[in-house]
Formats: sequence, structure tokens, C-alpha cells
Amino acid sequence: MMNSTHTNSTRYTSLTPDIRRQLAAIVGPDSLIVDQPELLEPYSHDEISGGGHTHLPEAVAFPRDEAAIRQLVELANRERFPVTVRGGGTGLAGGAVPVRGGLVIAMERLNRILDIDPDNFTVTVQPGVIVKELNDRLAETGLTFPCFPISYERCSIGGNVATNAGGGKAVKYGVTGRYVLGLRVVLPTGELVELGGKLQKNVTGYNLLPLLIGSEGTLGVITEITLRTVPLPTERQDLLALFPDTRSAIAAVPSLIARTGIVPASIEYLDRLSIQVTSRFLHDDLDYHDCGAALIFSLDGFSAERVAQDAERLRAFVLAHGAIAIEEGQTPERRERLWRVRRNLAKAFRSFSDFQTCEDISLPPARLPDMLEELQHIADEFGVQIASFGHAGDGNLHPRVVAPPDWTAARWRRELPLILAAIYRRTAALGGQLSGEHGIGEKRRDFIGLTVPAPALALMRAIKATLDPNGILNPDKILPAD
Amino acid sequence: MMNSTHTNSTRYTSLTPDIRRQLAAIVGPDSLIVDQPELLEPYSHDEISGGGHTHLPEAVAFPRDEAAIRQLVELANRERFPVTVRGGGTGLAGGAVPVRGGLVIAMERLNRILDIDPDNFTVTVQPGVIVKELNDRLAETGLTFPCFPISYERCSIGGNVATNAGGGKAVKYGVTGRYVLGLRVVLPTGELVELGGKLQKNVTGYNLLPLLIGSEGTLGVITEITLRTVPLPTERQDLLALFPDTRSAIAAVPSLIARTGIVPASIEYLDRLSIQVTSRFLHDDLDYHDCGAALIFSLDGFSAERVAQDAERLRAFVLAHGAIAIEEGQTPERRERLWRVRRNLAKAFRSFSDFQTCEDISLPPARLPDMLEELQHIADEFGVQIASFGHAGDGNLHPRVVAPPDWTAARWRRELPLILAAIYRRTAALGGQLSGEHGIGEKRRDFIGLTVPAPALALMRAIKATLDPNGILNPDKILPAD
Repeated sequence: MMNSTHTNSTRYTSLTPDIRRQLAAIVGPDSLIVDQPELLEPYSHDEISGGGHTHLPEAVAFPRDEAAIRQLVELANRERFPVTVRGGGTGLAGGAVPVRGGLVIAMERLNRILDIDPDNFTVTVQPGVIVKELNDRLAETGLTFPCFPISYERCSIGGNVATNAGGGKAVKYGVTGRYVLGLRVVLPTGELVELGGKLQKNVTGYNLLPLLIGSEGTLGVITEITLRTVPLPTERQDLLALFPDTRSAIAAVPSLIARTGIVPASIEYLDRLSIQVTSRFLHDDLDYHDCGAALIFSLDGFSAERVAQDAERLRAFVLAHGAIAIEEGQTPERRERLWRVRRNLAKAFRSFSDFQTCEDISLPPARLPDMLEELQHIADEFGVQIASFGHAGDGNLHPRVVAPPDWTAARWRRELPLILAAIYRRTAALGGQLSGEHGIGEKRRDFIGLTVPAPALALMRAIKATLDPNGILNPDKILPAD
Repeated sequence: MMNSTHTNSTRYTSLTPDIRRQLAAIVGPDSLIVDQPELLEPYSHDEISGGGHTHLPEAVAFPRDEAAIRQLVELANRERFPVTVRGGGTGLAGGAVPVRGGLVIAMERLNRILDIDPDNFTVTVQPGVIVKELNDRLAETGLTFPCFPISYERCSIGGNVATNAGGGKAVKYGVTGRYVLGLRVVLPTGELVELGGKLQKNVTGYNLLPLLIGSEGTLGVITEITLRTVPLPTERQDLLALFPDTRSAIAAVPSLIARTGIVPASIEYLDRLSIQVTSRFLHDDLDYHDCGAALIFSLDGFSAERVAQDAERLRAFVLAHGAIAIEEGQTPERRERLWRVRRNLAKAFRSFSDFQTCEDISLPPARLPDMLEELQHIADEFGVQIASFGHAGDGNLHPRVVAPPDWTAARWRRELPLILAAIYRRTAALGGQLSGEHGIGEKRRDFIGLTVPAPALALMRAIKATLDPNGILNPDKILPAD
């Protein structure tokens, strides 16, 4: 059972003239890019900082319906060329990068909202719908899909499902997978399976939905998604709490929910370096630019009175737990100011150094202070800077490793795997895992064995081999070479 | 890919004297029952009403640790005898019944709570822990595992995970699977896999936890469970609303959450027949014994004031949506009275007729009124009574089919499959599925094809064959004969 039938040494067919003709026949010649590197280039990478995960596809197809997708996948399975599915292209792990060439299926034309059903609290969509557009439409009926990755305005719902995307509100609302009630999926053999439905509860056979969710396009091509929605909160209040240091900020978080019963929608953490780099980038000499650490809280609900009461209790709680100052965001303008640093972090760091990596470790929430100390040790050991920010409420941290100005590209390439291995080993020692919401993709596949034990990896391999016997779907992702 | 390597025609070894000696050597002779039908009998059935799913095992083993379980499973896989795992035995689908004989592994001695970790909101337990005992212990630290099947005081957490059990609070808290963060599982080959951890977010490789959760002991033997817990609500208020008829009761539910933003922990539905039979059984001439239908709501939270406000808004809402009377349960005594009928339903019906079946269909919540009409048609068509009750808040209904007094056992056996097929076909036509929380087990396996399409079933079969190539774990469950 435990042997994969395909490995890194799998040989794939390149897209012969005959295959290209067949691709053009399926989607139409004007819905296919071939032989034009400048047009293929946007499909060769995602949004990983620092590059290094760029591979040109041989062709990009823009199907308009599920039938065309089935034909594309059947053709690939018959002819043995790789197929990589791409949503908004906003991934951070190289998941949508066609590392073995072949065909990219771009989902941007499957972008229809098929059914909004407020009586069942569901919405059914094609995978190419942009999450912000989905929520703009849902808001008209007082509903929302409450998962908000930072790429909210550009990411596609299909990509969110394929990566089980999280985001800033997971502490209260959980991640994408909690909301996926039904999927239509084209398997690597071209077969179509329908899973789930508009059902809140279902134990009719094995639960295959979560196997597809977060599988980064390696097990099937999602063609339709039915999501559970929730009532759109009408009230919101945000609060920024400044702390003298990292440990006091992080230590306040786990007890907050336990002792107050308040579950904020967001609890975001920023360390001193994150705040400094971003405030310099924004040319905004924030009054908190030299604090040790900050937490941003967001409360939501349906009663202004209750949200205000909770904000007051939250304020008292953090002041009693080491906060040295508090800023409140009752109005959209003040709120925007609170969030400005968090929102611009990635941009600020990108402008700050060419050599950096944004990680996504997930830890038992109470181990975050220990991990932050470990990160400081690693930074000292390798002579780099590590800024940390992330979702303190659920233990998901984004350490950003930044090379010193005098490092060469060669040195960064040499040191990076060592730095990452050090981070992941200490993550594993604290009971953590490599990725909380960004995924493994190409970026972390060679490291997955540091936190996932061999028998579990063997089981993943066996399942991949069962669903995709020829290994045509998104090869060389998630699972390392045998 | 789509062929199972084992089918109903799989031949299994019976437990030879040599195998029995080996079993005794693994668990100790006083932890093994063989050759004593009167001691084997309790392990031959679960709590399905009306019988018909009873099969004696050849042996029952009571291992005390994971190591013994691995040895038992390895032996079974080598010698090819069936293994069926049993928790509290409170199932309602024949999932724990050893239909092909062989060995039952009783988990009752793996009953330790290993670790309560309030800082990470987790608890780690062995599978034989009784859910009520788990929650009694958790309550000491102000936490709770919020899934409450009606068998709460007797069911084991391992069985809840194996069936992805639901219960009366799923409308607010979801089902068991939402709380399972980590599992240790012995695979059918005897290999041990560790999945997940004390992590709120994790996308490190395929999400295999939900594949095991609800797989009814057909894919692996769960030996350790890490659960997410939530703060234990300190306040509660219940409310019983009486309606003139079924349609008005059920129709009030979907709009409640959408329009008020209130999410009750429970919204339970009882129809006229359920109320009448149970109130007769209880010799309690309830003042609502002749109403058309009832809804029981339970509100919980951390502020008495807020819960009381919500109860008042809920009260106003149901009165504006067709309720003709309301009873409130602010005190434990009044609450007990409200719930008395719901709690005693199963017992009342068992005493009412020998021939009955309790179903567990799951529907898009807004289709419940249509389904209730369909059930009335089916009752008329077959000349039976169908009482309905269940979890109106999440679309999970328990229609109970009761034969008329003059039916013979032979007639019941002949008609029952036709009645079930009629119920399931209409469930499928309304977008529903066979089971919301009880599972498929042996009871519904021949019907699963009525609501799960063939490609999805083929995929389930392929996964079963991948994990359990010799088909030794809980054979002839969930998936129908090829």
C-alpha cells in the first residue's frame, strides 16, 4: 500500500503540436496561450517573496466550463502531461507554479455566482470568483463568508478552498474548510465526483471534502463550491494594545478567551521590527513606532451595546495584563489607521530587502512565547533579522526572515535552507507544524518530513497514488521525493 | 483505481485455536472472551431499535494499551480475520456489530484522560473515556467539549469520533469533527499514524483527520484523541414554543438565525405524534399534549443579562411567526420539564411497538417542511405511522417509522426496505443525505447508492482498499457489495 507509483523521476510528455491542437480544440484557440513567453510569464510564479519558485508553463488554457476541464484533464491523463490549476495566483508557497511545465488551467473565466440561498445559508459558486466580489454580493442579503486572507481583494474562492486559506478572522470564524459544504471535483482520471450538498450535517460515507480542501490542486480540480455563510455582523470595534515586549503581549492572549468568554474576530500580533520597518515604509512616525510589541483586536457582533461592552472589558483585561497604552478604532477612519501597519507589512518588507522569506508556522497557542524566543536565537545564530507577526489568537505565526544588506544572492540561497530547517525543527519540538494557512506547495515540500512523521507521509503518498495514478495533477508539490 | 480488492465475498479465517492462543498472549487470558455465548452476546448488537442487526463475535478482547491494539490488528491482518472496534455500544446503525464474526476489540479499558491543557484549550484522551465523564472533569477547569448526543452518559469519545457524532447542540457548536485536532490511529496493516496536534490551524500535507472521523472503524483504530474545548457557558435559558402545525413550526427556524442574529445552542423539533406517544408513556398529561408541533430552544452564554435579552427576543420572534403558546425554563426544574418529552422519546417509542426504525436524514434546512409532507405521503402509502423529531436548526431529522399493531414480523421485514427506499429517494430528491449523525454502518449500506453518486462511492471504495488491502477492519459496513 505504501508505495507511490510516481515520483520526482516520473517522465512527462511535453506538449507536442498534436496535443496543442487538441487543447485548442477543447477551449478554443483564443482561450489558449502557447509559445509566447511574455504571455506565459504571469503564470510562472505566485506571490512568494524573494523569488526562486518560477517555472514557465508550456501552455495556459482558460476553460469556460466544467466539461472543458474534464476534457483537458482526460487528455493530460491519457497523454501524461502535467496539469497545474491556478486561481488568483496569490499563493505564498508555490502551489500554483507549474514546476514540471505542461499545462496551466487558469480558472478566471469560471467566475459566476450560481446560487445564493439565504434560506439554507448557502452560496454556490464557480472557483474563479474573487472572494471580495463574493462577499459584496452576499452582503446584499445580509450574509457573509467570514474567511479573510490578506489577499482578500484578489484571491479566488477556488484557491482559498484548495489551500484551506485562513486569514485574520480565523480565531472566531475558523478557516475556509469549515464553510465548504459541497464540491464538484474533476479527478485526475477525468471522472467527476459530487461531494456533500447544502447540508449542515452529513455522515453518509467517508468525508472526502476535507481531503480535497487544502490539497493544493494535487488530488482534483474543483469546478463548483457550495459554501455555508453566516449572518453579516452589523457592528464592529477595533482596539490596538501596545506592550513593552513580545512575551507580555503574547502571554495575554490565551487567557483572554478563557477568562472573559469574549472571542474577538481577530487577534493580530506585531513585533517591534515589523512595526518599525512598516512605519518607516509608510513615512508615518506612528506614536507607537518604538513599542516592544502590539496586538490588534477586532470585535464584531449584532448589537452596538454588546460590542461596546466587550471592548470595554477587553480594554480592562489587556491593561491588567501588561499593556502600556491603547488606541481605539470606533470609526472606519480610526480603524483604518489601526490596521495600516498590519496591512502594509508585506509591502514594506518587500521594499526593505531582496532576500527574505515569509513563514507560516502553526503552534499550540500557549507555545508562541517560547517560539518567539527560539526565533531570536535563530536570528542571532545566522546573523539575520526575523520579524514576527501573525494570528496570535490561533497560534499561527508569520516569521519573516530578512538577510542583512551585505549578503549576496549566493549566500542567501546557501543559508536559507539551513535557516528554514532550524525554524521548522524548533517548531516541531514545540508541537507545531510547518504551515497554518499558506500551504506546503513547492516551497516547503523538502521540509515536510521535519514535522510530519513518515507513516503519515506514506499514507498521504498512497492516497495521492490512488487518486492520481499517473501523477499528472500538480506534480512535485506537498510530498517530497521518495 | 476504482476497484476494491475485497468485497462481500472476501473469505475470512475463523479464529482457530492457534489464533485464540495468540490473542490471549497479547491481552492476557483474563482480558479475552471466547466460547461463552452468554458473555459474547452483549457485543453482538448496538442500540438499533427493532433488532435485525445482531451477530455474535468469535472473541472479544479488552486491550489496555495501544501496543496491544497494534499486535491484535497485525495478527488479524496476517491471519485474515475480521476486527470490529466497539466503544460504548450506543450506536444506531449497526456500526459496531461484528457482522462477519471474528474479533471485537472493546475499548472500555482505554479510558484515561491523559492531559487537560487549558492554556491551549485542549484535552487528550484515550478512546474509551465516557463523554459525560470527560465533561465532568473538564468543567473543573471551566472548559467543555460541546457535543452532546442523547447517549451522552454512556457513549465513549472514541465512538463519537468514529461516527462523527452530532447531538442537540450542533446548531451552535457543530459536530464532533470540528473539535478533533489530533489522532493516533492504528491502520489496518498495524502501522501507527499520528495526525494533527494541539493546533488550531494546520495545512501541512493532506488533512487526513476527517477521513478517519466518521469512518466507523473501517479505516483505522483510534487509540488517542486530542480535542479542542471551549469555555463552559455559565448561563442558560430554555424555551418551549407550541405551534398549531408542523409547517409553521419548521418554517420559523431558518429565518430566526438570519433575522435575529441569535444562534441558540439547540433548536429541537417534535411533531404531534412524538409528543402524544411520549406524554402517554410518561403518564404526564402535558398541557401541550394535543398541540400540532413544538420547538424547544436552548440559549447559552456567559452573561445572564444577555441570555435573558436573547430569550425575550426569541420569544417575540416565535410569537410573531406562528407560535400559539410558550413555556420558559429559567430554573433547572422547569428546564427538566421542558426537555422531558424529548429525552424520553426513544424509550417511549420502544415500548409502543416492536417494529420500528429511527432514521437520521439530513436536508437543506429550508427543505424540512417539504420533507415532512413527503413523510406523511409515505406513511399513508404504506399504512404506517411516521413520527418526526430532530434537530430543526441544522436540517437533521429523525423520522421514526412505526408499524401498525396488526403487522407480523415477516410483514415488517418485507415492507421495511421499501419504506426506507421511499424515504431515502425523497430525501435525495430534496438534496438530502441518508445520515446526519448516526452513520451508515450495516443498517444503511445497501441504500447509500440512493443518495451518494456512483463515482463518489467508487472513490470511497478505492480509499478503503488503499488503507485496508485485506479488508479486515469492520467488513461489510458503509459501502455496499460491489
